[in-house]
Amino acid sequence: MAYTVPAIEELVQALRQLPGVGPRSARRMAYALLERKRPAMGELAAALRRADETVSHCQRCNNLSDAPICGLCQSSRRDPRLLCVVETPADVAAIEATGTYDGFYFVLMGHLSPLDGIGPEALGIDRFEALLDQGFEEVILATNPTVEGEATAHFLADLVRMHGLRASRIAHGVPVGGELEYVDRGTLSSALSGRRAIED
Amino acid sequence: MAYTVPAIEELVQALRQLPGVGPRSARRMAYALLERKRPAMGELAAALRRADETVSHCQRCNNLSDAPICGLCQSSRRDPRLLCVVETPADVAAIEATGTYDGFYFVLMGHLSPLDGIGPEALGIDRFEALLDQGFEEVILATNPTVEGEATAHFLADLVRMHGLRASRIAHGVPVGGELEYVDRGTLSSALSGRRAIED
Ligand SMILES: [Zn+2]
Ligand SMILES: [Zn+2]
Repeated sequence: MAYTVPAIEELVQALRQLPGVGPRSARRMAYALLERKRPAMGELAAALRRADETVSHCQRCNNLSDAPICGLCQSSRRDPRLLCVVETPADVAAIEATGTYDGFYFVLMGHLSPLDGIGPEALGIDRFEALLDQGFEEVILATNPTVEGEATAHFLADLVRMHGLRASRIAHGVPVGGELEYVDRGTLSSALSGRRAIED
Repeated sequence: MAYTVPAIEELVQALRQLPGVGPRSARRMAYALLERKRPAMGELAAALRRADETVSHCQRCNNLSDAPICGLCQSSRRDPRLLCVVETPADVAAIEATGTYDGFYFVLMGHLSPLDGIGPEALGIDRFEALLDQGFEEVILATNPTVEGEATAHFLADLVRMHGLRASRIAHGVPVGGELEYVDRGTLSSALSGRRAIED
């Protein structure tokens, strides 16, 4: 019977829960930490606990936040005319990193997917509609340029226009079929500045 | 100025300390944990703390252990005639996973590297020599098949023979220039069973 140390095997199993980490790289990570990176172990443990305890979703925009209403929603330095709708918090981070956009956000936490039973209610569309009456002029639909993301954008564009606001879609420039989170900053910048109005 | 949540940025930085994890995959991991894998955060934090607190080096074989003398060194079911020398604890894990070897180990924690100032004392050779007088008959030198690993094996083979024991080297079958830790089990099994005596 092979000799193993339970605490090491548990660490390997826990590391495997990270996305993109298979059994071999989990083991390699565990040994690298134990042999050469002891301080990183406590730092990572503390960062995990702190993030788990302090981060939840903003009650207004749905983005990840360390307060009930996030710092961005509370900011007086953002453009109050612009609302940008994205699928995930990672998309907010990607757009913020471009430095191109200074309006507000709404995070859907997904996209419409009727086959998976994900309809408008699952995406918090009622809270999105409530936002639409808070003085915005234009809603930028920045869902992913995938089939589901485009369908979601069209559905939301109808809602936006029903509330008397302009709807726009980020320009293609974002590669079709790709995911916003992985697009380089320059491409994402031009996609934002090249956005076009959605006509019915 | 881009909007960020400090607890998330700290988590991204901490994840970057894992080997092979760059800024993009660290961010992807952080968001995946926060959005979809909350239980994994506490589990990973606990596993990191537990491993950091309980795992150190066995005082006899140098392998990672949760006791002063590891369970393998204390086992009465291993073959007392065989001692296998490897460079790292990960190599012990790789050999144990083959199920081919049932003797004892000594972990060098590296290889001879005169240019980097790593001589015999840095590898704990005095403790290795003390082991040589504890009744073993054969010492299998399973350092990596690299230039430094081969030089280390030759140096150790001389020591082993000076103590009147047989020295053997794992068979080539392990790809030359490769690292033991990444070799598949079958190759590693045949390298072990095809080991040959080292003649002077
Ligand atoms: Zn918010
Ligand atoms: Zn031991």
